[in-house]
Amino acid sequence: MTDCISLSHYIADRWVGGGEGRSLHSAIDGAVVAQMPGTADIAAILHHARTIGGPALRAMTFRERGQMLRALAGALTERKDELYALSSLTGATKGDSAFDIEGGIGTFFVYASKAKAMPDAHVLPESGRETISKGDFLGQHILTPLTGVAVHINAYNFPVWGMLEKLAPTLLAGMPAVVKPATVGGYLTEAAFRIIIESGVLPQGAVQLLLGDTGDLLDRLDGQDSVAFTGSANTANRLKAHPNVVGKTVRFAAEQDSLNASILGPDADEGTPEFDLFVKEVVREMTQKAGQKCTAIRRILVPGKSIDAVQSAVVARLARVTVGDPREGGTRLGALAGLAQRDDVIANVERLKTEANVVVGGTIPDLGDALAGGAYYDATLLRCNDPLGSEIVHSVEAFGPVATLMPYADVDEAIAIANAGQGSLALSIFSHDRAAIARLAIGTAPFHGRIMIVDRDNAEFATGHGAALPHLQHGGPGRAGGGAELGGVIGMMPYLQRSAIQGSNGMIEAIEGLRGHG
Amino acid sequence: MTDCISLSHYIADRWVGGGEGRSLHSAIDGAVVAQMPGTADIAAILHHARTIGGPALRAMTFRERGQMLRALAGALTERKDELYALSSLTGATKGDSAFDIEGGIGTFFVYASKAKAMPDAHVLPESGRETISKGDFLGQHILTPLTGVAVHINAYNFPVWGMLEKLAPTLLAGMPAVVKPATVGGYLTEAAFRIIIESGVLPQGAVQLLLGDTGDLLDRLDGQDSVAFTGSANTANRLKAHPNVVGKTVRFAAEQDSLNASILGPDADEGTPEFDLFVKEVVREMTQKAGQKCTAIRRILVPGKSIDAVQSAVVARLARVTVGDPREGGTRLGALAGLAQRDDVIANVERLKTEANVVVGGTIPDLGDALAGGAYYDATLLRCNDPLGSEIVHSVEAFGPVATLMPYADVDEAIAIANAGQGSLALSIFSHDRAAIARLAIGTAPFHGRIMIVDRDNAEFATGHGAALPHLQHGGPGRAGGGAELGGVIGMMPYLQRSAIQGSNGMIEAIEGLRGHG
Repeated sequence: MTDCISLSHYIADRWVGGGEGRSLHSAIDGAVVAQMPGTADIAAILHHARTIGGPALRAMTFRERGQMLRALAGALTERKDELYALSSLTGATKGDSAFDIEGGIGTFFVYASKAKAMPDAHVLPESGRETISKGDFLGQHILTPLTGVAVHINAYNFPVWGMLEKLAPTLLAGMPAVVKPATVGGYLTEAAFRIIIESGVLPQGAVQLLLGDTGDLLDRLDGQDSVAFTGSANTANRLKAHPNVVGKTVRFAAEQDSLNASILGPDADEGTPEFDLFVKEVVREMTQKAGQKCTAIRRILVPGKSIDAVQSAVVARLARVTVGDPREGGTRLGALAGLAQRDDVIANVERLKTEANVVVGGTIPDLGDALAGGAYYDATLLRCNDPLGSEIVHSVEAFGPVATLMPYADVDEAIAIANAGQGSLALSIFSHDRAAIARLAIGTAPFHGRIMIVDRDNAEFATGHGAALPHLQHGGPGRAGGGAELGGVIGMMPYLQRSAIQGSNGMIEAIEGLRGHG
Repeated sequence: MTDCISLSHYIADRWVGGGEGRSLHSAIDGAVVAQMPGTADIAAILHHARTIGGPALRAMTFRERGQMLRALAGALTERKDELYALSSLTGATKGDSAFDIEGGIGTFFVYASKAKAMPDAHVLPESGRETISKGDFLGQHILTPLTGVAVHINAYNFPVWGMLEKLAPTLLAGMPAVVKPATVGGYLTEAAFRIIIESGVLPQGAVQLLLGDTGDLLDRLDGQDSVAFTGSANTANRLKAHPNVVGKTVRFAAEQDSLNASILGPDADEGTPEFDLFVKEVVREMTQKAGQKCTAIRRILVPGKSIDAVQSAVVARLARVTVGDPREGGTRLGALAGLAQRDDVIANVERLKTEANVVVGGTIPDLGDALAGGAYYDATLLRCNDPLGSEIVHSVEAFGPVATLMPYADVDEAIAIANAGQGSLALSIFSHDRAAIARLAIGTAPFHGRIMIVDRDNAEFATGHGAALPHLQHGGPGRAGGGAELGGVIGMMPYLQRSAIQGSNGMIEAIEGLRGHG
């Protein structure tokens, strides 16, 4: 693993390398790991996707594309050890890597499974026939793939899952994709992409890999293209307002900043199972992937009466967390993705400190000379005693092992504090009181894309606050960007056009055109 | 009708007048009809909607809101004669007025009917439970109303339907609305709005009326607000890219330009029923509402072999169309909405003439001194012999009784020409050949929001190329703006937030909270 990897674009079905680009560093110790290629030929990428990849994918049925996803999931599973080896260089522990790698492959398996219920045809009907007139003249909404290219601009925190969770719905929808990974950790994305190509499962032009600068990509898109962006709100806003994106109605979906909350129910006093489950989940969310999850708990909402008890329990549990080399078995908190990312966390913790006090952390651990070049940061708990009088704790996302504890007085106040995030990806509620759960969920739903509710009875089956599942929508309103990924067909919608067909039943059946025996 | 109407805003449940604004003119003869009020207090409007209207609507269940729509439809029906009287001043014939007024009321009836299948509860479940884990831990997508305000920016061509087709899904979703009609013809919208208020059916703050300038409205919106815009692409693009709209992820849906096509099938030679049905539909679309429908046929696609026969038939039929005072029973083609709108049509026909020849029309009729101040324009047929070598005929929308005839060689070429519109609201196909229909529909679907297919068997039941139905999506990709109005729940989505709930079945049932006996 100490050799420097020379990275390549994958354009028009061939690898295009030439290591003229910048060097990428290990998050563990700062050693040079990989070198980026020079700039890519954007026009060639788009032309190939539109003329070769799109037609090839659209020639397949939804069910055939589902089988393709299953074969890809199998190919990735077979060679996943290669990915684990590289993943540790991004700062990920074994568990963190599993979240990224197995989570990504799981997305392919679930979408392949969803495709079994789809028609062996080129058109995906939505709901049933609509009665719109007397006689044999009906309505039917159908979905067909856009004829352009899907551009995936991914974040650095999930080099594998980030690519695969966007690719699965795109390929099943029937659109060719251009994957643009984050530069940091891009070598891991390239490795996973290489397995996909070498599997030989995909038709030509179905996927291409663009590393580094996107050049004039946005200027070349139109209304049949679709951009899916994950990253900061600042970048998202710049891209969304790009004159050609606006002028051509280029589809644009964003997952951006999110100050996710977890709420300890008013009933969940110290000593209840929900209290313990909550503390455990908070600490897991703070440390998993070194807190670099867009879904991670950033705001810990607890009844005022319990705040000191929660604080003590979280601090005690954090004290048992080992920070260090992610390759070591005992390490629970690995490194951040890089030193620049750590600098951002440090700066944002400083901003949070204007409204909250540091309870524990806020420091860089001393792990000895060998790891001195690594991007380590201690788990950091802050406390804000006046959340409704505060603003920064609801708007500044310190993208690391950082969360802020805050008290609420009653259910209405808990809702108001959670919603002060102005739109988040994920919320969780730990409560055994159904009435409180219903009020909290309905009150926070308009601001949250996903709400997980845990109690003593379902905890053993719960999938985790931070885990975006392929079956369920991943995305939130407002600050979270307004996108809606995953969730079965929901996540395919950015790549499909809905058309309302009006005609005789026989005409509609001819368009739905089941192939073979369906 | 000759008195000048002094128009008022409706803000915070009271009428706010004061005729300091500009004068509005009759499309029939240019006489002054109404006077606009001064500028409105935008902050007061938004505050009232958010603090009074929203909570009141959200306190109702989906089914209760459906009953409210039905009562409004009844109230509008009772007083619709008042609307017909004003409608003629906008240039509309009796038939045009029915399209606007009855069409608008029909939207309320259909949404009221759809609501009967919705729960008597505050949450609208989507699809069924998702299996996401072992044991009693499931997923469920639910929809809840946004907590902000719906801003409706309407176009001038449908003063009644334009308001009602946006209000029905908004109110059923549970969001308060601010209606901002086009200034031209705004007196008709105000009259319909007045009937709604005077019916006493709506809770306070549910709807407000803002006439004229929107001031700093867009600067005051956030991620819980939703803008629905109908109008020109230029205006839409400016609003979409507004820094606060982008920065706060304000929901923004647009219906904008659309160069809709109608295709005569390769089988539909002169003498077939489909040929006659097609000619009739083309002429109806050119003349109804004086061609001022965003869904109107602008591009007439016919097999090259039949183009001369179609041209002769359309010209013959247009010759029987009487243009003139819309109040006269024999008038088939009334006036455009105003002189400025006519100037736009004239300018755009000049642009079309760089790629197409005028077959008939392109002129202002001489209707005598009494109507000399009216906004009349002759039905205008153009012909473009090289559609795939042209650009303007696919991109310049002359928003009047104007359409361009163009030939195609085969089905693939017909698809390419239709799609050269780069995204349209509506397409129609006149053919009795199922195989051709399926190819045309699947090939054009990614570019079209609605596709109507007519043949000899279903023609008597067909609802018309230009008629947007409440049951079916109204909206198209690309140039058409990417919005999706109407279509039952589809049209409510801009006003609802989807949340994925994860929890025990009993928890989900508590959130779904059926009220009473469901």
